[in-house]
Amino acid sequence: MTDRTDGMNYAPKGKPAPVVKPGQFVFAAVALDHGHIYGMCNGLTEAGGVVKWVYDPDPAKVDAFVKQFPAARRARSEAEVLDDPEVKMVAAAAVPNLRCPLGLRVLDAGKDYFTDKTPMTSLAQVEQARAKVAATGRKYMVYYSERLHVESAMHAGDLVKAGAIGRVLQVTGFGPHSLNAPLRPAWFFVHEQYGGILCDIGSHQIEQFLYYAGAADARVLHAKVANYGHKQQYPELEDYGDATLVADNGATNFFRVDWYSPRQLSTWGDGRTFIVGSEGYIEMRKYCEVGRGEGGDQLYLVNRDGEQHMSLKGKVGFPFFGQLILDCLNRTENAMTQAHAFKAAELCCRCQEQAIRVE
Amino acid sequence: MTDRTDGMNYAPKGKPAPVVKPGQFVFAAVALDHGHIYGMCNGLTEAGGVVKWVYDPDPAKVDAFVKQFPAARRARSEAEVLDDPEVKMVAAAAVPNLRCPLGLRVLDAGKDYFTDKTPMTSLAQVEQARAKVAATGRKYMVYYSERLHVESAMHAGDLVKAGAIGRVLQVTGFGPHSLNAPLRPAWFFVHEQYGGILCDIGSHQIEQFLYYAGAADARVLHAKVANYGHKQQYPELEDYGDATLVADNGATNFFRVDWYSPRQLSTWGDGRTFIVGSEGYIEMRKYCEVGRGEGGDQLYLVNRDGEQHMSLKGKVGFPFFGQLILDCLNRTENAMTQAHAFKAAELCCRCQEQAIRVE
Repeated sequence: MTDRTDGMNYAPKGKPAPVVKPGQFVFAAVALDHGHIYGMCNGLTEAGGVVKWVYDPDPAKVDAFVKQFPAARRARSEAEVLDDPEVKMVAAAAVPNLRCPLGLRVLDAGKDYFTDKTPMTSLAQVEQARAKVAATGRKYMVYYSERLHVESAMHAGDLVKAGAIGRVLQVTGFGPHSLNAPLRPAWFFVHEQYGGILCDIGSHQIEQFLYYAGAADARVLHAKVANYGHKQQYPELEDYGDATLVADNGATNFFRVDWYSPRQLSTWGDGRTFIVGSEGYIEMRKYCEVGRGEGGDQLYLVNRDGEQHMSLKGKVGFPFFGQLILDCLNRTENAMTQAHAFKAAELCCRCQEQAIRVE
Repeated sequence: MTDRTDGMNYAPKGKPAPVVKPGQFVFAAVALDHGHIYGMCNGLTEAGGVVKWVYDPDPAKVDAFVKQFPAARRARSEAEVLDDPEVKMVAAAAVPNLRCPLGLRVLDAGKDYFTDKTPMTSLAQVEQARAKVAATGRKYMVYYSERLHVESAMHAGDLVKAGAIGRVLQVTGFGPHSLNAPLRPAWFFVHEQYGGILCDIGSHQIEQFLYYAGAADARVLHAKVANYGHKQQYPELEDYGDATLVADNGATNFFRVDWYSPRQLSTWGDGRTFIVGSEGYIEMRKYCEVGRGEGGDQLYLVNRDGEQHMSLKGKVGFPFFGQLILDCLNRTENAMTQAHAFKAAELCCRCQEQAIRVE
């Protein structure tokens, strides 16, 4: 489940860095439709969380999960999980258009929710989730893994916050993914279910833009999608998408997502992020150093101190998960604010709605 | 005049590869306003051209030119150059908004014109130039140096043509430049004269898009400009711009240009081009391998043969110039078609016209 060539089942492992004592933070895993559930549960357990339950209607998925997390007990139903007062949080990676309905049930049960991205597939769902959070006071947190579970991406945030490149003017992100079509579940190719490419893998990109730019809001200026190469076999797939946005603070964004990573690439995608500031710039080569066989988490910083290359694998860790656990226990927002998580979701839905189609 | 830290005076030198005998192709250099004239004349003389005349109203510019090209005679006027029947071509790097009027005079004199980019600064000029070419049968060629004078960029074109990445779906270009404001002439900061950032340095990007995508035409979908950091000192400068286009064959383009290259970078700009194809992708790191001290012309190719890194400095040469000379002598279009040169110019003007302003 740490297959570098398959983004869907790429579940990073970090060093254990517990922020709580055993049993202080109990969570459950339900809806194992997307392999990201493994990265999510790795992160939470490394930070000291205990996965008490697992539930999915498909026993094969549960079997696989229990192999990785033997402490997890097989629940007989979702209700059994939601009814357990010891469970503080439900982690889930449902089919994208079912992530919000599940989240609403979790929040109604008085628990926090931690879902794989994209957290919603429509603006109506975004509004439902916002209303439910307001009504219950529970958290609807999102695994935006392309920042939260990438050491170079976490370090880039620290550099920006420390002023290493001045005011952030522009963020460009490339999120190419390998299709690996035969390994994908059926829902992956049904537009209503996966939500569209800008909503799905585009959500990572917009979350990073808002974060690095330090922006609370943004406007979609242009977006486009295409199904260049799979019209016959997968008519509802969008195999290409891009968009450009402007944030409330004037910073702009362009991102490109696609399903065209060659199978022969050493990883599932040569993901990049470029941050242009008034005093320098940062580039992240997240998952590989293409053509050099050096692995990912390479960060390049150019500023008044010259050109710097930082190889960050194993050096930063994944502090998000411990912060998330403490946020749940202390009702703080250090890992991520609810407003930020929802704004990224809203904007990726807006991109999808506004997208023109190219051929 | 081969200062790697100053794009305006970056004049690549290649190996001599004459395509003609001495004296077979005589040209002149006039209007030395932009340092690109040196790269242009390097290219033409390495390909066997003889620079017979130089003319500029500023004697200091002529002095500097004659130091580099001692064979060039000082003309007393532009007319003296245009009246010489031996001169086949006039190479020029005028202030951008004067490039077209000069070109019209050159064509009227029965000579071919080779101008620095951007070749025009308005759609009206594009139409004037098209009409003049139609009327005279002369060539109005453009030094789109970020492809024509970059070995990795030339090789990328060969790879694409050979089918190395299948159908080209998307081209992204980054054209960051260092401002070096104190070294710039006054016209550089006057919008009417430099034409706007998308028209000026954006022209390189659009030319590359059309070339790599194999497109004859494209539509501007969105464009933006900003003056983020120089409003007080240089109110007419645009220090940031980007645009996205779709070509007649469905390929799309995004490019970003800016004047934010840190002075401490080893070169004047970390220019990149990314070409995503249906069967693989190419990245060019044109002017430096940031953070690794390895110099530019690094090309990365990922396709069915895996990941490849090619370090191309000194290995490709600059065939454009010899082809251009032969095109002039033989009235062919192997170096570049007139339609292509004009289309890139038209589209960069359209970007500039359609650009929204961000703050």
